Amino acid sequence: MIDWLAAPSRVPDHAVARAAAARQDTLTKPPGSLGRLEALAVQLAGLQGRERPSAARVRIAVFAADHGVAAEGVSAFPQAVTGEMLRNFAGGGAAIAVLARELGATLEVVNLGTVNDPGDVPGVRRRVIAPSSANFCAGPAMTDAQLDAALMAGAASVADAIDAGTDVYIGGDMGIGNTTVASALACALLDAQPDALAGAGTGLGAEGVVRKQRVIARALAMHAGVDTARERLRCLGGFEIAALTGAFVAAAQRGLPVLVDGFITSVAALAAVALRPDAKPWLIFSHRSQELGHARVLAALDAEPLLDLRLRLGEASGAAVAVPLLRMACALHASMATFAEAGVSEA
Amino acid sequence: MIDWLAAPSRVPDHAVARAAAARQDTLTKPPGSLGRLEALAVQLAGLQGRERPSAARVRIAVFAADHGVAAEGVSAFPQAVTGEMLRNFAGGGAAIAVLARELGATLEVVNLGTVNDPGDVPGVRRRVIAPSSANFCAGPAMTDAQLDAALMAGAASVADAIDAGTDVYIGGDMGIGNTTVASALACALLDAQPDALAGAGTGLGAEGVVRKQRVIARALAMHAGVDTARERLRCLGGFEIAALTGAFVAAAQRGLPVLVDGFITSVAALAAVALRPDAKPWLIFSHRSQELGHARVLAALDAEPLLDLRLRLGEASGAAVAVPLLRMACALHASMATFAEAGVSEA
Repeated sequence: MIDWLAAPSRVPDHAVARAAAARQDTLTKPPGSLGRLEALAVQLAGLQGRERPSAARVRIAVFAADHGVAAEGVSAFPQAVTGEMLRNFAGGGAAIAVLARELGATLEVVNLGTVNDPGDVPGVRRRVIAPSSANFCAGPAMTDAQLDAALMAGAASVADAIDAGTDVYIGGDMGIGNTTVASALACALLDAQPDALAGAGTGLGAEGVVRKQRVIARALAMHAGVDTARERLRCLGGFEIAALTGAFVAAAQRGLPVLVDGFITSVAALAAVALRPDAKPWLIFSHRSQELGHARVLAALDAEPLLDLRLRLGEASGAAVAVPLLRMACALHASMATFAEAGVSEA
Repeated sequence: MIDWLAAPSRVPDHAVARAAAARQDTLTKPPGSLGRLEALAVQLAGLQGRERPSAARVRIAVFAADHGVAAEGVSAFPQAVTGEMLRNFAGGGAAIAVLARELGATLEVVNLGTVNDPGDVPGVRRRVIAPSSANFCAGPAMTDAQLDAALMAGAASVADAIDAGTDVYIGGDMGIGNTTVASALACALLDAQPDALAGAGTGLGAEGVVRKQRVIARALAMHAGVDTARERLRCLGGFEIAALTGAFVAAAQRGLPVLVDGFITSVAALAAVALRPDAKPWLIFSHRSQELGHARVLAALDAEPLLDLRLRLGEASGAAVAVPLLRMACALHASMATFAEAGVSEA
């Protein structure tokens, strides 16, 4: 099997980005006065290879999976919730389902393996790898074949999105225990300690956070010898985080801009960049999560998110909330009059 | 004449806000995990007096006016731009016109007096008070009658908005020299020095900023004896800032939530709260402007804006960019499933 992860990312079109930046300076406003909305339009122009970029067609893919480490009591919610939430995504009652409707975005929900398996649910794609990953306190979270399947699930989602004519791709997560998994993986990738990265998740108290940090410390000790990004992802990751990682690598390879959500997806972004550093220009960071470890992960990625609204839900909800900013940046860039067109005097 | 500014603001409906907060805790997410979007829905519920609030119908009123102090050379742009931009607002090429279209919001443009008067322009409402305010370095910016007319222009805009069934009101500004005016007024209202509040505006260099600060210092010395909020507004304000002040007071009196834009409108909010402290709960702050003095003005209002995108354009553009956040907060609040409805287990 050829390792598809080895293929290079596309190079953004810097000439188009320069042309877009030049256009910004002709529009009827003091230069630079639209701040990050100007930079966003210029960045998207370079990524999409068109001087007037678009964020009209948005694909949101939410990957759900269970985690063996949930057995260690690391979440405020029971593991059954992962499967229950699959129905809620498909039924339209989950936050991301509401937001996707508001945005007119396509919502794809992928079941990668849940202990409380809802079976066939209309609106949920089954790509079940196993009922859950293994408890990484006792061994690797995934086998090599499971990791490959998860990475490929992400790449397949991106291929579908491109076939459907997507302008911007968003990945989301659902999985009880996944802040523990993301924290453990980030600790390994950043050589950091659990108390710097593991926080309250869905709502642990101080005691629960300490227990969670000890669980992560045990896992890090167990997998201390692991030294490649791929092996760290296999031993300390989970199905949905690996799928997101695969999606982000594939998006960069295929030239599809990604709007990254919060803590879990940012750790997947960290893994994607560890696997393929040239993937980084394709990642736009949407929001700063309230989850403890997010700031550290964002700093490692030199990322300055667009929003800081104290969100900590996951499901791609923060990225969805940022979509209108991309759309307005594109609309201003495409539709504002120039000084010449409007007959307005310059400075 | 009865002083309409003396009428009290409406009191938000705290019982409805409590009911909305209780609903938030039943929705399928960890409690609090939607952060400021939860608080925003609860706040809007209390202001609108309905448990499921809405930001569907948005009215954006942009008030344009010229300022006598422009004669002191305080702007990077010529004064003719104010009148030229009126055509650009009405013609759809200005930033706020593009954003209003994106949002499906009603855009009202009001000419309160411009030196380069475009005359009758379709889509621009003429409420001309004078070609410009007077240079406040030489005397009061406005006569008492001019101030009344400007305040009333704002109140009339709010009355129109309410008649049209508006959910959220936004005021915007246009006027060459108006960061100088807003800075001077804020200095008087906050007893602050010009170097703490007067910044680059549309793009002054360091030398230009120092000149602007000296102009403001002269104006503050000239009007040092003035000690009521109304007289400070008359002596150191301008037509559009006074109209915005009147609009914000009237909105609070009539019970219409206001989304406040950047520096100029926040100084108008400061003046409105100085006139009527009970107006404050009706003001939602949209964004933190890059203009130097905004942070100080926001702090004085205990305001934590929703966005920080390094905008500094005015025209209500920052408030418009924040509208989707209100809409998504309302959609999540109204349409998410509860734990019971979705059959999802709780923590």
